[in-house]
Amino acid sequence: MELLRVDTIEAAREKLVNAMQEKKPNIVRLDLLKSLGHILAQDVIAQEPVPSFRRSTVDGYAVVSGNTAGASESLPVLLEMVEEVSMGHPSCCPVKTGTCGYVPTGGMIPEGADAMVMEEYCEIFDENHLAVYCPVAHGKDVVSQGEDIREGELVIKKGTRIRPQEIGVMASLGIMDVMVYEPWTITIFSTGDELVHPSHQPAPGEIRDINSYALSAQAETYGLKIQEVMVCKDDQETLKGKVSQLMKISDLVIISGGSSKGKKDATSQIIDEVTDGHTLIHGLALKPGKPSIFGYDQSTATLVTGLPGHPVAAMLVFDLLIIWLYKYMTSQKEGHSLFARMTTNLAGSPGRTTCQLVRLIKKEQEYYAEPVHGKSGLITSLTRADGYLMIGQNQEGLNKDELVEVFYV
Amino acid sequence: MELLRVDTIEAAREKLVNAMQEKKPNIVRLDLLKSLGHILAQDVIAQEPVPSFRRSTVDGYAVVSGNTAGASESLPVLLEMVEEVSMGHPSCCPVKTGTCGYVPTGGMIPEGADAMVMEEYCEIFDENHLAVYCPVAHGKDVVSQGEDIREGELVIKKGTRIRPQEIGVMASLGIMDVMVYEPWTITIFSTGDELVHPSHQPAPGEIRDINSYALSAQAETYGLKIQEVMVCKDDQETLKGKVSQLMKISDLVIISGGSSKGKKDATSQIIDEVTDGHTLIHGLALKPGKPSIFGYDQSTATLVTGLPGHPVAAMLVFDLLIIWLYKYMTSQKEGHSLFARMTTNLAGSPGRTTCQLVRLIKKEQEYYAEPVHGKSGLITSLTRADGYLMIGQNQEGLNKDELVEVFYV
Repeated sequence: MELLRVDTIEAAREKLVNAMQEKKPNIVRLDLLKSLGHILAQDVIAQEPVPSFRRSTVDGYAVVSGNTAGASESLPVLLEMVEEVSMGHPSCCPVKTGTCGYVPTGGMIPEGADAMVMEEYCEIFDENHLAVYCPVAHGKDVVSQGEDIREGELVIKKGTRIRPQEIGVMASLGIMDVMVYEPWTITIFSTGDELVHPSHQPAPGEIRDINSYALSAQAETYGLKIQEVMVCKDDQETLKGKVSQLMKISDLVIISGGSSKGKKDATSQIIDEVTDGHTLIHGLALKPGKPSIFGYDQSTATLVTGLPGHPVAAMLVFDLLIIWLYKYMTSQKEGHSLFARMTTNLAGSPGRTTCQLVRLIKKEQEYYAEPVHGKSGLITSLTRADGYLMIGQNQEGLNKDELVEVFYV
Repeated sequence: MELLRVDTIEAAREKLVNAMQEKKPNIVRLDLLKSLGHILAQDVIAQEPVPSFRRSTVDGYAVVSGNTAGASESLPVLLEMVEEVSMGHPSCCPVKTGTCGYVPTGGMIPEGADAMVMEEYCEIFDENHLAVYCPVAHGKDVVSQGEDIREGELVIKKGTRIRPQEIGVMASLGIMDVMVYEPWTITIFSTGDELVHPSHQPAPGEIRDINSYALSAQAETYGLKIQEVMVCKDDQETLKGKVSQLMKISDLVIISGGSSKGKKDATSQIIDEVTDGHTLIHGLALKPGKPSIFGYDQSTATLVTGLPGHPVAAMLVFDLLIIWLYKYMTSQKEGHSLFARMTTNLAGSPGRTTCQLVRLIKKEQEYYAEPVHGKSGLITSLTRADGYLMIGQNQEGLNKDELVEVFYV
């Protein structure tokens, strides 16, 4: 029996990155309104300051701050009112010593003024004069030009996943077209003579196809573009033909097969043939997820992956290797994580990294991680889980109350 | 001057829930493949067990476990091979004492057998006989019928946001149509004489519209359906007309206006009129976000909200009140949070709850929360933030190194 020369996750990631150095993700131009959730492909640099003029943050009067020194309830300062600024219009009359101008919240502060007095601390004295009852310091309630964004400032970094606030910032800078990474296109094959379409009642020995549904939803979650999803019988030649054909129009082809030895051999052979002998990884030192195969075909620039048939194993390997790689190649940060305390001892697997699903429990000022057990074929273990943790291959295990990093699923 | 009778966040939430008791979210049927990210509107109960038959988790031989007692390298047990099960086909020949049958991973275990022996521990002895070199216990490497999901079991709870794994579980149960909550439809008005379309170069005194972009992206993030997004000048009658008209086809109408007193009064008057006097909340004891107004119109079942003009304040109130309410009414759990240690002291605001943006820093086995400062009009404070924390209105503040809960933004 041929022993699998399995790779650690770290080694597998390194092999993938090295083999795919030439494969640079494409960059496309998107309308700002359609860019939510996409990955920014270049730094956003401000071409102008925001705000572009000095604005007031209150309803009140623009003054020369020095004029208000000593103002009090009993001894107000009298200033001549020389202007009333309207929203959306420039201030046209400068303020100087002894004068002031009304400015609404967000309005433009007249030249010469250096502070605002809130209208609550003022009183109209006569038609042309204002009484100020309170001193204000230089800069009070004024947003300077460029205080939010300076001209030439790096505002959003390349690799950022665009959230609503990034859309807001780009709108404020007048950026209507956004350069983002074109998502990988992915084709998914779910293979097995035992698989029936989920809408069918399985006969004894048959089961419903889960992986084509779960994996395509997972790809969608990360913004990948689904090229094709197929359920296939175990017919090596037909499958190989379809894989070859779809590699031409996919960045990533996944063959999720059974884990029986005959099937593994078939998938492994197909991957080796369609990648012209460039199988990179033949098994992972990972629990679950050992029977995973990765090959890269340079002529079509396609990554071809054989994932375990067990849905949970397939989904975790998809996350830990393929999405990791996609994020790496598009300069993304890692996903949300948190530190939680183990509710129980948990053994690792010597020589293999263990990926353990956990449920999170919030108690007082801490999160606790409770392992969700279940054989790797049991998809409900993933629906009961909030996240997963990793136990290193050289780690004996985790102790009750130990702090561990949990990644959300 | 009329003082605002402001509500705490808790009081505001209670008022909204009470006023909108009659407004039940609609339930719609969706194709399983289109249900990703939607909110499940009813519990999913299994109508059948999964798996529906006993399956092997290894390639090997199905045996009566008792027969293997005492088997060893030097003294194998000999069993007659009576069957070879194929994937996708039922087993047709029972196994009994003294016999065995080959079963591939995922294949059906013959009646009478109660355990699997991995093929690594067996050897073909002759055409009809197998030598077993290792004893196995009852149930070894067998997944029982219903071991993943029992018939009648509550598998996924109402209110769950559908992830890829929930799609997988429903596929395994043959559920092709999913009952989900129909997302609220939302109309957004961004108002102000100073606003210009982001593609235009603002003249002095003008600024680019941010809120219609940022708020519609935020609504999209939570799966709400955008009905209409409009930028309007400050013309009370025209705005009121448009609001009335769009209330007929929206669950939620947002008027994001300036924060100047005149504008607040205008928005407040519009909301009072279009809701037939049912203004529920007139100001929040929240920093930022005080000038927020909520009214509910029973005849059209529409929530009409005036949000601050400052983008960050508008987005935080949208999250803390509107999205909170939407989640409450669709039985959703709260979002991802974590506990982090303050990098610095931070003062609260007496009588008001403070919502403070923070950047998260991972160091060793902890996250640290570093306040992101900036006036609430400064949208970049939100792009620099990973999340926010809350300081209660009766809390003086937070101390350096204190643990706080942070919610992701």
